[in-house]
Amino acid sequence: MLEKSDLKLLMNSFPFWKQLTPEQKNHIEEKAFSKTYLKNTTLYNGDIECLGVILVKSGCLRVYMLSPDGREITLYRLYESDICVLSASCILQNITFDIYIDANTDCKTLQINSTDFGKIAHENAHVELFAYKTATDRFSKVMWAMEQILFMSFDQRLALFLIEEADHSNNYIIKATHEQIAKLIGSAREVVTRMLKYFSEEGFVRLSRGQIEIIDYQKLKNLTK
Amino acid sequence: MLEKSDLKLLMNSFPFWKQLTPEQKNHIEEKAFSKTYLKNTTLYNGDIECLGVILVKSGCLRVYMLSPDGREITLYRLYESDICVLSASCILQNITFDIYIDANTDCKTLQINSTDFGKIAHENAHVELFAYKTATDRFSKVMWAMEQILFMSFDQRLALFLIEEADHSNNYIIKATHEQIAKLIGSAREVVTRMLKYFSEEGFVRLSRGQIEIIDYQKLKNLTK
Repeated sequence: MLEKSDLKLLMNSFPFWKQLTPEQKNHIEEKAFSKTYLKNTTLYNGDIECLGVILVKSGCLRVYMLSPDGREITLYRLYESDICVLSASCILQNITFDIYIDANTDCKTLQINSTDFGKIAHENAHVELFAYKTATDRFSKVMWAMEQILFMSFDQRLALFLIEEADHSNNYIIKATHEQIAKLIGSAREVVTRMLKYFSEEGFVRLSRGQIEIIDYQKLKNLTK
Repeated sequence: MLEKSDLKLLMNSFPFWKQLTPEQKNHIEEKAFSKTYLKNTTLYNGDIECLGVILVKSGCLRVYMLSPDGREITLYRLYESDICVLSASCILQNITFDIYIDANTDCKTLQINSTDFGKIAHENAHVELFAYKTATDRFSKVMWAMEQILFMSFDQRLALFLIEEADHSNNYIIKATHEQIAKLIGSAREVVTRMLKYFSEEGFVRLSRGQIEIIDYQKLKNLTK
């Protein structure tokens, strides 16, 4: 059975909640379950059977593509109260690509498996529409990521990454190795190391083991314009 | 007023046709209009006001992204009886990116402007769902294109392009300049020229002004595997 706070989260996060029948509400309340993922766990990949709809209770999930030779391209991240439907792609007719989802931090989620969600989506057009609208929203996020990858010069991309990390965590110290940053922004470690060295020489950042400290936020931000 | 063949095309192409009210059918029949675009015309870009839903009657449209410095990345193409909804992105809540659409050949289209289509989508959930489902389908196409661009080596991409062109036109002669091919596959002319020279030396293709002839289809195809 769901905790009261989980039920409240469901009601607030699913815009179709008021358009469910009492039976459908009961069905979701009975079938939804909580889960905890440790940092760096892979929640979802092409091999794991269609997982279902994931609602993030806390932490951060990273959604990415994986190349045949193991290169990762981050598409977007999901934070508290974000919902992932691509992990239930078996109930979306037109999704034919594979994505991967990792826990970027320790995460708590609320999940509804594909069969249960699919049943309700099949019965209730509002639920089905929600799933496709959410997928379309992710489409926009992916296009944004692709524009960064394809069109921005690398100094801009790296600067933008550092600025966004700092803004998001409200902290000028970013704890990540060059290898991790390279994965997150779809580049190679050597390229990241070289550019960070340049940023450091320019006085934008201070580098130490496993972390980057932003010491001139404004100059770094100017790079991204 | 629409021609009979156009009406038939509407009925066959829009899966929601049977779920429209007689008034909604009349509205679409009255408001839909035919249009002709000459090869290389730009139908749609960030500056042109939200155009509406486009149904391809004949020819080929190319949908692409444009970088700030003018580089084009082809996302997908639309052929006879394909429908474009991203050109009506103003009626889709979650589409926040700009795409561009060119006529790749002389094209005939049937169009419904955004206001008229939006009105029906607002009234009829089947129509709204169709729009989002179609957008989700294009999401898959875009992901496919991105995988090619990000993950395939360039010889594979160019070989795949030539094979697809030949298969699609049922013709081993591909009429295109290196510049045009570079645009279509999101590369630079010099890179295309160099790789085509290699293909030609390997005996896969024969090059002449403004065209590429495939002379060893199988070997070229093997490259794409």
